[in-house]
Order: sequence, then structure tokens, then C-alpha cells
Amino acid sequence: MAEDRIVKPVAISGFPEWLPQVRLVEQQWLDRIRATYERYGFCSVETPSVEALEVLMSKGETSQEVYTLNRLQADPAAGSDARLGLHFDLTVPLARYVAQHFNELVFPFKRYQIQRVWRGERPQEGRFREFTQCDIDVINLDSLPLSFDAELPRIIHEVLTDLEIGGFTLGINNRKVLQGFYEGIGITDPIGVIRIADKLAKIGPNAVGQLLGTELGLTDTQIKACLDLAQVSGGAEVVDEIARLGSGGALLDEGLSELGFVMRELADLPAGSVVADLSIARGLDYYTGTVYEGTLNDAPGFGSICSGGRYDDLAGSFIRRHLPGIGMSIGLTRIFAKLVADGTITGGPLSPAQVLVIVPSDDRRPEALATAATLRSRGFKVETYHAADKLKKQLTYGSRKQIPYLWFPPFENGKSHEVKNMASGEQVAADPQTWTPSTWRSVR
Amino acid sequence: MAEDRIVKPVAISGFPEWLPQVRLVEQQWLDRIRATYERYGFCSVETPSVEALEVLMSKGETSQEVYTLNRLQADPAAGSDARLGLHFDLTVPLARYVAQHFNELVFPFKRYQIQRVWRGERPQEGRFREFTQCDIDVINLDSLPLSFDAELPRIIHEVLTDLEIGGFTLGINNRKVLQGFYEGIGITDPIGVIRIADKLAKIGPNAVGQLLGTELGLTDTQIKACLDLAQVSGGAEVVDEIARLGSGGALLDEGLSELGFVMRELADLPAGSVVADLSIARGLDYYTGTVYEGTLNDAPGFGSICSGGRYDDLAGSFIRRHLPGIGMSIGLTRIFAKLVADGTITGGPLSPAQVLVIVPSDDRRPEALATAATLRSRGFKVETYHAADKLKKQLTYGSRKQIPYLWFPPFENGKSHEVKNMASGEQVAADPQTWTPSTWRSVR
Repeated sequence: MAEDRIVKPVAISGFPEWLPQVRLVEQQWLDRIRATYERYGFCSVETPSVEALEVLMSKGETSQEVYTLNRLQADPAAGSDARLGLHFDLTVPLARYVAQHFNELVFPFKRYQIQRVWRGERPQEGRFREFTQCDIDVINLDSLPLSFDAELPRIIHEVLTDLEIGGFTLGINNRKVLQGFYEGIGITDPIGVIRIADKLAKIGPNAVGQLLGTELGLTDTQIKACLDLAQVSGGAEVVDEIARLGSGGALLDEGLSELGFVMRELADLPAGSVVADLSIARGLDYYTGTVYEGTLNDAPGFGSICSGGRYDDLAGSFIRRHLPGIGMSIGLTRIFAKLVADGTITGGPLSPAQVLVIVPSDDRRPEALATAATLRSRGFKVETYHAADKLKKQLTYGSRKQIPYLWFPPFENGKSHEVKNMASGEQVAADPQTWTPSTWRSVR
Repeated sequence: MAEDRIVKPVAISGFPEWLPQVRLVEQQWLDRIRATYERYGFCSVETPSVEALEVLMSKGETSQEVYTLNRLQADPAAGSDARLGLHFDLTVPLARYVAQHFNELVFPFKRYQIQRVWRGERPQEGRFREFTQCDIDVINLDSLPLSFDAELPRIIHEVLTDLEIGGFTLGINNRKVLQGFYEGIGITDPIGVIRIADKLAKIGPNAVGQLLGTELGLTDTQIKACLDLAQVSGGAEVVDEIARLGSGGALLDEGLSELGFVMRELADLPAGSVVADLSIARGLDYYTGTVYEGTLNDAPGFGSICSGGRYDDLAGSFIRRHLPGIGMSIGLTRIFAKLVADGTITGGPLSPAQVLVIVPSDDRRPEALATAATLRSRGFKVETYHAADKLKKQLTYGSRKQIPYLWFPPFENGKSHEVKNMASGEQVAADPQTWTPSTWRSVR
């Protein structure tokens, strides 16, 4: 412990870590998300944290962000694991997993995956380099029923409601509507328009209009039609509105029919929480139909809290089968860290224990241990105090750890057990075999 | 999908991944381990997957195995995250965590941590480069009560029993006993003996005896005494046996008193499942008192399934406080992969769903969706079939996914719901509001 040997521990930017009381709430979030995903019959998959670089690079667009692994050795040039990289999302691993285990999966393959992902971003405020994503996807062979386009946002809606993150909006759009509409008004590069339209929330309609003119050479009439379309939002009825704005065509009709179906399926959800929003473009090339984007109503500038969409061919880089899919992803760490930072989440108790069993004396320690064992066998979470310390010290420990009940085994023969409710201060005689607590306080 | 663009997906040696039915069992293991740790009031902590290299290297002994992170960039020389490495265990991160958050923790700090760790081993059969460890530790300020030396193996015993991995033995020893005993017979380098004695299970007593002579210059009498000590095993009574073998001394007495206490505390556990085993040395330098090592009774050659011990000063590299600790770690992936490989674990069903709701027709799809929603609101895990396909196709899907109940909403107005138990073949009328299944089959 000489002066020069101390390594001062400091947080590493972009790699979040929580105190136990906050971790307890995060754990509850993870449990709830998983429970909802499973309630809809999705199975759990985890993949290794690493993939071969050629797998990660198969879409060829994110090389800046990939962390590669190297072994730390006396001679750094001798590293031999440089062909491995940490996964930067859970979609590429899913595609590889489905291709690799194709013959052993039952389709439609419905899986959820809750794992950490890594992105080698430059350190900056609010950017995470390690974070947890909660993905849910369905992959099928050859064709994928439209019912899933409605089921996924329903599941995500249930998850977000359950997490009590405050008001949110799930926006839904359809790439076929955008592409069909653009083609219908004579635009030859609809994907180009989608890429530019994706910037609408960030740069506003005027700047988007300008870009459409300068970069793609659209006419003023075309620009106005594109911007009018992006203004459209609402329920299933927007389908008619868009049909009136546009000039028909098979692709537009198909998209409108799909969008209408999804919106009608979700019509039972609370008003305004799911909207057809024609401004959602999702810049990524691989989306081909329904696209999703969720936002917090009270923090529109915070950006997307979940997103996803339908892709025609998930695993085409890895297998010669046609595997359409649809998926959504919740950016857990991003939302959670925001609610911690703004004080919405303050943390649970410092111990998961429901009961702290007091040790009256060394002689009576066996009785304390037996009492704890009885309570545990009945499913309670129980700490036994670790020594026959002065009562005051034991009480202080229980109160600092915010354990809701203190249990006093008999201090003398012939006396009964007593239990104290720390919230109410009430202390009563109790039997460890039959005792039932009042309701636990909820944790946030 | 041109020929040259296909990247054939293959498993990466040392990075395990499971099919959904096996992952389901792994998930249950993780749930059970966590539940037991929490039942004893330990809080959950997760740390980032990476630490600063100077933190990882603070013990200065494992540089060969550390994976460092580098960003994949056009110019590989420009990588700037090389000072970060993936953690290779959960003890170094715990030490750093406790030092960093020292003022915000309540001591004794009792935490569990279930996370992946990485070791840059050369790829070889049975060696994992990414695996999950399940650690449980207690850290206290200045001194740590001996009760924890007995509580930790009790918790681990409960976990391993609960996992039904077959017969196991938790061996317990005490470094003070070894060191005091060696010193008592005139050995000047007791730590050297511990390092060599640690090889006993691997190379046998003859080879160990030889090494003690050639490397440390022990006399034949000293070697015989060391090997005799390593033969000792049993319950609390071994304390007297060792006292007879050795030549006293304060350190030996202290160690025997500690070992005796721990063994007496655990005397209620099934005979033979916890033994004082004087052959356990645990080569690592930082253990100072109780040490643990668990093995499978039917696979002694498989080596350790869990291990741990007491260390006098956990975080001395990071903070100027005296923080003794004690911990145990279960090598989850190692045990789990073995039981998968030898066929003990064959996997659960392919879906977590308990019920598959059949869709009689497009017209009746809303009723199927409403039925599923009702069952889910009652806590059941439910898949709704994704389209109004032919009944046979729907039944095949349910049976391939091994979903235990099929639910038939009314096929005509006025008819009732019916539910079929796939195990018994029995099909009965049922009400989604009140139905209760027979017991679920257990999953292994």
C-alpha cells in the first residue's frame, strides 16, 4: 500500500455503472421486459459478445464503431484475435444465428435478446460505448404474416407502459407508402428522398425542402407534396388522406393497405399512444415495409427510445434462403440513464432483503440462524446480522440498508419472537412459520 | 445474394452459444442462482465489461490473458482505446467498485455479481474465452466477522443443490493452518509450499514430495509431514487430528480455531457434502484465511466447479482503507457446458409459451387475440398463432414448439372455448377467465 502503488479508480466515459440501489431498479426493468416478451411466447437467445469481423462487416457500413479484440502481450504485434470484434447491435448476431442454426429452429422463429452491445464512439456527453439493448424479432421462411407488424408494437407498448417511463408515442410508417407516393409524383430516386426526409426532426421542413431541391433536383411541386406527406399523422383514417394526396400506383396501395391493417389492429390502445406518422423515414437501407420509432412525449428532443421495422431478407449475407423478418429494439440504457439523470429514478433500498434477523447474543445466534432459515424456506429474502453486536449497531445497519422488517428472536427462554415494521414503527409478536408481512413498499 | 457475398457462419472456438431450448435451461439456472443470493440479502452489482488496463494489471500477473479493445478504423495505428481491457474476473472490478464508491456503500457490503468475463486463452477443447461467473462476496471495513466464512459456503451449497448438478463436495481449508503448520515444522517458505501443494490433485503426492525437496530443500521428515497433512479430511473433528500432527504455534491455533468454527456451523448440511480438506491450497497469493474449492463427485478429474476464499485486503491497490473480504465464485458456463455435453441437460421446450391460441378463421381472429389477451392478463405465457392457416398447420406448429396447451376459441357462435392438454391428449371446455392448467412439466 505504498504511495506509488495506488491506482485511483475513476469512471470510464461511456461505460455506465450504477450504485446497488439503482441497479436494483434496472434489474426490475430487465425482469419486466423479459416477462412481457415471454408472455407473448418469444424465446430467449443470447449470442457471444464477439463475432468474426467478416460477419460484423457484412453490411459494410459501420467500421468506425467496431471494437476489435487484441491480446495484451509482451509483444503487441503477436496478437492473433484481431479477426474478432464486439457486436455493435443484436441484429447482425441474430442474422448469423438464424443462418448457422437454420436446420434446428422452428419458423416463424420468435426470439428476444437482451444483451450489452458496444460502439467505439468518441467519448462525449450522453453517448454510451457499452449499453444494453432489448430486441424482439420474428423471422420466417419465404414470407412473414402481417399480423406480426401489429403484434410487435403492441408488445413494446405493453413493455413501455409497464416501465412507467411517462407518456410516449409509438410512431408507425410504411416504406412502401413513402416509396410508392414518391414514385407516383414522378420522383426517380425515392430512397434518396427517404434518406433526406429522415433528417426532418433534426433540421426542419425548410432545410429538408432545400436539400430535396439542391441534392435531388426535385421540383417545387414535388417538394411541397413530400413535405405535405410528412405532415400526415393520425389513426387508420390517414390512409384515405394519403390516397387523396398521392397519385395511386400498386406499391402505394400495398403500403396503405398494410399501414391501415396495422393501425386498425392497434386501435384498442390508448388514444395518441400509437400513431401513423408519415414523417418517420428510418434512414437504414434494409427496411422494406413497416417502420417504427418511439419517443417520449415530454422530451421530444431526446430522440428515439425504441425503433425497428420490417426487412425483406435478414440473413442474405449468410445463407441462401429467403428469410424476411421484423423487429423492434428498446434502447434500455439510454432511457434508464436519462431517468436516473433527471431524478425520476432515485433507486430502491440498499439491500434486496425484506427482513433483517437480529442476533440477541452469541448464545442465541443459532436461534437467529434457524429463524432466518425458516423465513427463507417460506420464500422471504432475509439477512441475518453477522455478529452479536450491540442492539443499537444492528438497528443502525438495518435502517441504513433500508430493510423493511426487523426480526427479534426471543432474547430469553419462554419469550416470543417479535417483528418490527420499520415504516410504521409497529412491533408485534410473530411466529416465523406463519408470519405474513403487510404489502412491501414499491420501489422506484 | 451473389455467390461471393455469402459469409458462412461458423462457431468461434471458446465462445459458447446455445439453441433456444438449452438457453431456456441456462436462464432458469441464472434465475435460481440469483434468487438464492438474494434470499440471503445480497444486492446485485454489475460493472462495465471493461476496466482501465492499469486497474486490470494492478495485481500484475495475468497480462497474457487480457483482451484489449481497439477501434477498427481505416488507419489501424490511430486506435485510441488501447488503455481499456475486458475484465477477466469479477474480483478486480469489485475491488475497483468498492474503492470508487466507498463513501456511498454500507458495510459490510454484501453483493453478488453475475456477468460474462473474458480470457484470451489459446483456443483449445474445453477452454472458454467468454464465460459467465456467478460471484458472491462480502467486504467490510477494518475487520470481517467469521460468520461470513460459514455463510458463503452455505449459500453456495444451497445454489448447487438447487441446480441438481449431481453429487458435489465443498472442500474447505484455511491458509493459516497450512502456513502455521509449515512454520511449526521449521519451513521458512510456507507460501512456496502452498504453491507446490496446490498441484497435488494434478501431479500426485510423489511428484509434490519431490518438488518440495528439489525446489525448496525440505527434509524427508518435513515432506512426510506436509503430505500427511494433505491427507487429512473430515468434519470439525479434523482440528484435533491436525493439532496432533503439528507443533503448535499461534498462527496454527488461530487457523484451527477458524476452521473448527466454520465446520461446526455447517454441521447440519448433508454428510460428506462439506468437508475440511487439508489438501486444498488455492495457489493465489491473496488468500489469507479460509479457502474453498468445490468438485463434482462423479467427475473428480473435471476440477473445480466453484472456489474462493478470504483475503485480508481486497482493494489495497485502489484505496487507503483496510478492506478485508471473502468471496466465492461459481463457474457457471463450465458446469453448464459439461452437463450439456454429457447429455444431462437436454433442453426445455422451444417456446416459453404455456398456451398456443388457435385462429379458427380470419373472421374469428379478433376473438383469438382477445382470448390470448385475457390469458396473458392472468399471467400465462401465450402465443397466438399468426394467421388463419389450416388447422393441421397450426397444430403442427404448436407441437413442434412443444407448447403444452392448445386453446381453441369457439369455431361458431354459441359454442364454447376448448383447451387441449398436449401431454394427456385430453380436450375439455374452458373459460379463459377462470381456466387453470394442471402442473407444468418440469424442464431440464
